[in-house]
Amino acid sequence: MSGGKLSHFDAEGQAHMVDVSTKPQTPRIATAEGHVRMSPDTLAHVTAGTAKKGDVLGIARIAGIQGAKKTADLIPLCHPLPVTKVALNLTPDDTLPGVRITATVKTTGQTGVEMEALTAVSTAALTVYDMLKAVQKDMEIGGIRVTLKDGGKSGRFEA
Amino acid sequence: MSGGKLSHFDAEGQAHMVDVSTKPQTPRIATAEGHVRMSPDTLAHVTAGTAKKGDVLGIARIAGIQGAKKTADLIPLCHPLPVTKVALNLTPDDTLPGVRITATVKTTGQTGVEMEALTAVSTAALTVYDMLKAVQKDMEIGGIRVTLKDGGKSGRFEA
Amino acid sequence: MSGGKLSHFDAEGQAHMVDVSTKPQTPRIATAEGHVRMSPDTLAHVTAGTAKKGDVLGIARIAGIQGAKKTADLIPLCHPLPVTKVALNLTPDDTLPGVRITATVKTTGQTGVEMEALTAVSTAALTVYDMLKAVQKDMEIGGIRVTLKDGGKSGRFEA
Amino acid sequence: MSGGKLSHFDAEGQAHMVDVSTKPQTPRIATAEGHVRMSPDTLAHVTAGTAKKGDVLGIARIAGIQGAKKTADLIPLCHPLPVTKVALNLTPDDTLPGVRITATVKTTGQTGVEMEALTAVSTAALTVYDMLKAVQKDMEIGGIRVTLKDGGKSGRFEA
Amino acid sequence: MSGGKLSHFDAEGQAHMVDVSTKPQTPRIATAEGHVRMSPDTLAHVTAGTAKKGDVLGIARIAGIQGAKKTADLIPLCHPLPVTKVALNLTPDDTLPGVRITATVKTTGQTGVEMEALTAVSTAALTVYDMLKAVQKDMEIGGIRVTLKDGGKSGRFEA
Amino acid sequence: MSGGKLSHFDAEGQAHMVDVSTKPQTPRIATAEGHVRMSPDTLAHVTAGTAKKGDVLGIARIAGIQGAKKTADLIPLCHPLPVTKVALNLTPDDTLPGVRITATVKTTGQTGVEMEALTAVSTAALTVYDMLKAVQKDMEIGGIRVTLKDGGKSGRFEA
Repeated sequence: MSGGKLSHFDAEGQAHMVDVSTKPQTPRIATAEGHVRMSPDTLAHVTAGTAKKGDVLGIARIAGIQGAKKTADLIPLCHPLPVTKVALNLTPDDTLPGVRITATVKTTGQTGVEMEALTAVSTAALTVYDMLKAVQKDMEIGGIRVTLKDGGKSGRFEA
Repeated sequence: MSGGKLSHFDAEGQAHMVDVSTKPQTPRIATAEGHVRMSPDTLAHVTAGTAKKGDVLGIARIAGIQGAKKTADLIPLCHPLPVTKVALNLTPDDTLPGVRITATVKTTGQTGVEMEALTAVSTAALTVYDMLKAVQKDMEIGGIRVTLKDGGKSGRFEA
Repeated sequence: MSGGKLSHFDAEGQAHMVDVSTKPQTPRIATAEGHVRMSPDTLAHVTAGTAKKGDVLGIARIAGIQGAKKTADLIPLCHPLPVTKVALNLTPDDTLPGVRITATVKTTGQTGVEMEALTAVSTAALTVYDMLKAVQKDMEIGGIRVTLKDGGKSGRFEA
Repeated sequence: MSGGKLSHFDAEGQAHMVDVSTKPQTPRIATAEGHVRMSPDTLAHVTAGTAKKGDVLGIARIAGIQGAKKTADLIPLCHPLPVTKVALNLTPDDTLPGVRITATVKTTGQTGVEMEALTAVSTAALTVYDMLKAVQKDMEIGGIRVTLKDGGKSGRFEA
Repeated sequence: MSGGKLSHFDAEGQAHMVDVSTKPQTPRIATAEGHVRMSPDTLAHVTAGTAKKGDVLGIARIAGIQGAKKTADLIPLCHPLPVTKVALNLTPDDTLPGVRITATVKTTGQTGVEMEALTAVSTAALTVYDMLKAVQKDMEIGGIRVTLKDGGKSGRFEA
Repeated sequence: MSGGKLSHFDAEGQAHMVDVSTKPQTPRIATAEGHVRMSPDTLAHVTAGTAKKGDVLGIARIAGIQGAKKTADLIPLCHPLPVTKVALNLTPDDTLPGVRITATVKTTGQTGVEMEALTAVSTAALTVYDMLKAVQKDMEIGGIRVTLKDGGKSGRFEA
């Protein structure tokens, strides 16, 4: 086990919301990505819908934006943060096949927004599943990870 | 594209919350699974924590249970459902390496609970990520899928 | 002042959530309507958006559905109800000029869903305003009323 | 269609929460108004209640204040904002007849609070309807509009 | 340690939301009580307010009703329940001195509502504190307990 | 009645969320305490659980942290605040007998966090009750009070 430390626990191993009150307010950004894998048939419903009617991706995008705002309510030790930007991109990908999702979140605050970006992606992915489950039940949500985090003391992380 | 129909859209392609008011109230169950992949070093923090202090898995389990109760708030077209059971299992797995998560949700209602099970797994996975991100940023959440759904008109689904 | 009685207050005038525990569970439906009045120029943004991109009405429809689910959280003395259907219709109307909104909500429960229908319309109207306020600030939301309520002891109301 | 631009959509017409991270934090204020129209008989219940018991307006005022705090949860693309003041005024008006509602909201932030003021008025109006619906079902909520917005880059708006 | 069993933990000591899906839906009632102790001077503000203006108790009553509806959101392992009645009583008591609070909650469901009654009392007590803290900071909230629980398999409890 | 003033009411006695927009942003801290009194037998379940399995105190700690984040949603006239630290301590006490709870909350803002500290303690206490109610129904929650408040214009309060 490396020398790293789980900051969410104190010396006695009790969980707490980490004290960030002495950290400076700096501009923060994070991006995350993920996907919903499905059959080509199911994906055809998505692409048909986007073009004409039954806008699966548009609804999932809204759900992802709202999900980002609920992060501190969902993740017990997350700090509440006034996010200043949330944008999601949902793209059909025939080679997956399925839908690729990316999210970008910004704030000016005392702690990072990677959890907000991950929650946006997760909520959008769940919504894609929900809207398509009538035609396919064995879709799979995966590949959810942080691709960029910048703006705090710990420096830039890019994957 | 198969003959299946996206029930969340009406004939004009407008999204709606499907009318389930004439469906009978029946016992429903769903299970879902997923995982958080991490380095062996990070996983060592989890297993140390479970045994002694800094209970990552216990906190993620609580977050998952609460997440299941927020499903209709997160997923735009989900029906609100009074869930009657939520249980999560989080297990360290050296071969992943990482944490495997399963969730079981029950209700007696007019529609299924697979979205509640998936939301429980997703929220628990995000919480695992949050609690370990101080030691590793490139963990990945994946393999989120429904493994069982039973109790409604559409019959038993098992994967 | 008519002989009617404000059921939300007890004999001492203290507010309470009315006891509905002895009322039978019956199918309930309510519809409500409302509108957002705007300039023809602003409305042109809506109709352009619906046809091609920037889907104001689609996003407001989702907001209205989610708003219906938050009714008991917003209105202090409302009973929480598991709604079984929520549908909204948003239509550009050149004669207003503006957007007309209708909502239909169903449940099987011990009390009516007219507040859910009104809340759906109000939330959709606020969302329309939000999405168009960059081009016009003096839009007006109005005409919000119940058009149908049926299914309980008090009989059918239609307006 | 005027040259105005719907800021909630990007160049591809996809909805996003607008990036306000580079805007300065400035003091902001907005006021909004609206009304609930009802019969003189119903209004008599309100005025009787205010004077003696069954405080319809007091409860609607509280609901409006809480509604203002829920704005970013209700309106998909609204930024979460730490409001620094919310005040509502609810006045019986025999000439309407009905109840007139005004709301004032302040913040120090990167974006305006007109949606918070409109949401406060709407929530208060819905609560007035809820508390009086036992005696009148065909009340109407209307006249909801922004009357003042000041403090940001776009300058003062007054109606 | 008695032979009793903590039903919120499974055989491995892992927390779960207890499975109540096979329990019958029966009418349930619970009452709880509590108080806020304060100086006679502070209490005079309350009694003055109730009689004339600044209605501390009326606002705390509304907060308590809304708190009851948030119980499953606040208490991790609580089942969501559609409460069918919530009533609070707040009474100034010179002998305390302070405010006495009681709450009554009903549902027809598969599990009891004592947590809803306790949450109603707690939320009302916190609201009383909030509204009076400008004049006294060392008030104390106490005596919060269940006084009646009836309607389930475990029989009637009265204290 | 002292000369103090209930700041949550205006000159007409109408409740409002106090205007703090001209107050400076300063570092704030508050601590609160409380307890859950129970039989020695019930307390034995807690201490057994902490040591080995069935972690009552760990779950209550998480509930308290999340409760602190919900303060402005629960208490009608509280300002929403981005808390920067929340920590709870739950200690079995044989002399009570029962569980003693303390909470510490920090923010950098325009108003104090004593309501957040009190809400954290209350929510943790309710969760302790919930998890133990299967073995004892007549537990009592009490002694909830502010023990420290510092950082604002009104100066340091310590009890």
